[in-house]
Amino acid sequence: MAAKKKAKKKVAKKKVAKKKAKKKVAKKKVGKKKAKKKASKPKVAPKNAFYAQSGGVTAVINASAAGVIEAARAAKGKIGKVYAGRNGIIGALTEDLIDTSKESASTIKGLRHTPSGAFGSCRFKLKSLEANKREYERLIEVFKAHNIGYFFYNGGGDSADTCYKVSQLSKEMGYPIQAIHVPKTVDNDLPITDNCPGFGSVAKYVAVSTREASFDVASMAKTSTKVFIVEVMGRHAGWIAAAGGLASTKDTPIPIVILFPEVEFNEEKFLAKVKENVEKHGYCSVVVSEGVHYPDGKFLAETGLKDAFGHSQLGGAATVISGMIQNKLKLKNHWAVADYLQRAARHIASKTDVDMAYAMGKAAVQFALKGHNSVMPTVDRLSNKPFKWKVGMADLSKVANVEKMMPKNFITPDGFGITQACRDYMEPLIKGEDAPPYKDGMPSYVRIKGVAVPKKCPKFEL
Amino acid sequence: MAAKKKAKKKVAKKKVAKKKAKKKVAKKKVGKKKAKKKASKPKVAPKNAFYAQSGGVTAVINASAAGVIEAARAAKGKIGKVYAGRNGIIGALTEDLIDTSKESASTIKGLRHTPSGAFGSCRFKLKSLEANKREYERLIEVFKAHNIGYFFYNGGGDSADTCYKVSQLSKEMGYPIQAIHVPKTVDNDLPITDNCPGFGSVAKYVAVSTREASFDVASMAKTSTKVFIVEVMGRHAGWIAAAGGLASTKDTPIPIVILFPEVEFNEEKFLAKVKENVEKHGYCSVVVSEGVHYPDGKFLAETGLKDAFGHSQLGGAATVISGMIQNKLKLKNHWAVADYLQRAARHIASKTDVDMAYAMGKAAVQFALKGHNSVMPTVDRLSNKPFKWKVGMADLSKVANVEKMMPKNFITPDGFGITQACRDYMEPLIKGEDAPPYKDGMPSYVRIKGVAVPKKCPKFEL
Repeated sequence: MAAKKKAKKKVAKKKVAKKKAKKKVAKKKVGKKKAKKKASKPKVAPKNAFYAQSGGVTAVINASAAGVIEAARAAKGKIGKVYAGRNGIIGALTEDLIDTSKESASTIKGLRHTPSGAFGSCRFKLKSLEANKREYERLIEVFKAHNIGYFFYNGGGDSADTCYKVSQLSKEMGYPIQAIHVPKTVDNDLPITDNCPGFGSVAKYVAVSTREASFDVASMAKTSTKVFIVEVMGRHAGWIAAAGGLASTKDTPIPIVILFPEVEFNEEKFLAKVKENVEKHGYCSVVVSEGVHYPDGKFLAETGLKDAFGHSQLGGAATVISGMIQNKLKLKNHWAVADYLQRAARHIASKTDVDMAYAMGKAAVQFALKGHNSVMPTVDRLSNKPFKWKVGMADLSKVANVEKMMPKNFITPDGFGITQACRDYMEPLIKGEDAPPYKDGMPSYVRIKGVAVPKKCPKFEL
Repeated sequence: MAAKKKAKKKVAKKKVAKKKAKKKVAKKKVGKKKAKKKASKPKVAPKNAFYAQSGGVTAVINASAAGVIEAARAAKGKIGKVYAGRNGIIGALTEDLIDTSKESASTIKGLRHTPSGAFGSCRFKLKSLEANKREYERLIEVFKAHNIGYFFYNGGGDSADTCYKVSQLSKEMGYPIQAIHVPKTVDNDLPITDNCPGFGSVAKYVAVSTREASFDVASMAKTSTKVFIVEVMGRHAGWIAAAGGLASTKDTPIPIVILFPEVEFNEEKFLAKVKENVEKHGYCSVVVSEGVHYPDGKFLAETGLKDAFGHSQLGGAATVISGMIQNKLKLKNHWAVADYLQRAARHIASKTDVDMAYAMGKAAVQFALKGHNSVMPTVDRLSNKPFKWKVGMADLSKVANVEKMMPKNFITPDGFGITQACRDYMEPLIKGEDAPPYKDGMPSYVRIKGVAVPKKCPKFEL
């Protein structure tokens, strides 16, 4: 089950009662189905499922894939095969489907500890049904050809929107499809769910790395580097940058200045804060979000390039900050840009995050089996101390195109730090270690065979 | 003991015999000392030791510190207190000494799993005895005042040179001091020793991170990022960059292009290689050393700044490479700069490296007790498969100012990869995990109390 161990025990009793009730209902249903099956076997062949990964990948998105596939395998007779889109939704459009039934149980189990998107992801956003009917018709063509009745889409805000549109296909185009979105994004910007799987692990990576590099710069500061800067992801929301603040605790205080995209960059105030820290502590660490911008909205790290969704491609805020500190404060500094390292770092993943990612995948299948459409499993937080959570459910209409910003009370009044409210929220999410297996000093990450499902439809040009 | 478990068993029997012989000698010595003590107690107070950390710190230099301090504590009666220089050799010059006897056993034990230089490091090179007699005289003044007879200096090439100079003090200036260098450097460029503690862990970090980010870019490549670039340390030698090659194994092949400082950068050949990989595999990873340079010697990442040793301060080779790939190949790419994250990453340290770092510290004390001066403990490799090593000893005169380059046969003929010889050398060094203890999701790194030894000498201006 999804919930943490401690939570489990208390909730367990209630659930047992509910489950028993459900089981009784289930048995009756099964009985009916069996009767039907006997009467007309070929017609009730269970629907297959389509699963795809979307957008930037994470350290734990494959754990969600494992959750989906293992739950579907466990629901034998109710769900047929799980076909994964090679490179996300593009795999559906081009009928490039991977037959996950050809993957061994140990490979699927191994996905739980493997970073990246094992089936390939993509940055490809479907437009509205009106604007791009051709693509939706194609999806239906492929779904029909492969008897696909379940659509599990594993992604962030943009893919929640796509998933929502697909969920509308039944109504608009008369094809029965249950579309369930599986939340994933290091940006942690999906609404309703307490957090997005992928975030806890990137937060842990940033917190641990900031602590480690801060120890490093502290030992060099007397004669050499006095400021260490690390640039982290987060285009519009400072969730990841905030995680850098977790590096500093009561036991292990560290002077850290965080630059959030939520706070307009003020060079003068920033440099004063760094100077103050260096004078007081001898050194200072800076965690800068890639999304930090000036009051006029211009990113510090503007490159002028845009991605497929029309977002500006960023990179290099750290170098800008480094130059300021060098030129204005005359302080020697070092800078790092974590980029993909942060979101791929499965070796230092949060166990809480891995558990949640798996639970979201599993819950998606369970929701589908219960007949739900156009929904997304969520993490519902029940309490902070002890940390308890359960799987909830959100309507996709309320998820699509809504970006969750950090609450204002997570940022200290000076704009450079995190509050206790932020700690209370984030600390449970980085808890627990879940090291992958190692072979000869290297983590053993799995790769799928990726056997293609034979094509049945005409070719389709993207 | 220093040796790996497998090595231990075979060597153990021989050692037992030797040890027994030693013990007998030791007992006799103790007997003599005790007799002396009774006769003239104040004169035979054991000499204190000075320990200092130098240059860029590593994930395991504190493990060497733990080795020194625990071995010195175990040699009670033979070595007095261990005084650590606050911020390296500067602590000796300014008489800013830390009394390590005030640190609890658990703190010293905790140093084994704590990255950075717990006592503070520095970039400060002593000139020759002739050029800077004032500083050497000051060292003697401080050593005399605190009854220091042992000098343990934990660093790389520059500090081996300083240590060598200090070892000459006895002869030149008539003060008895035994100077032992404890090898440490992520650059792995000290001669004689098989490797330098600190390198195995940075190598593991780079190998693991490159594997993880390569999995990431592979899953994005269809519609988005096709090339991932990570910049790693290594000013003159490509040891660390080479470790990126370990990300690719027979089980888990990855197309990786490595840019070594040993190979003059050729833009055309490099871009052709990247293009070839992307065409063949769909993606490509690039590991670029900060020290990569053009045929005329100019670094790709030249910033114009220099450090205290007169070395150019580098940073940004990755951005240069990124621009080339974007502009010339029109391939979307992402880049990371690992900087301090790589050398501070104790959470993913190599167990082999941690064991070696500790063993070097311990051996330094043992050498001192045997009366050695002007030496450095080394890692002597006995065999690759199974990996066996023992502690050896090198003359500092042969270590100082000698930079070990990578053997030419470690780099593939095309200049972009590593050979089997390189793998055979490096793979044992990244073996084994040695996770630090965690508290609430964060590694528990220790900090020293750092109690100052009361000053006895006049002030000294650096």
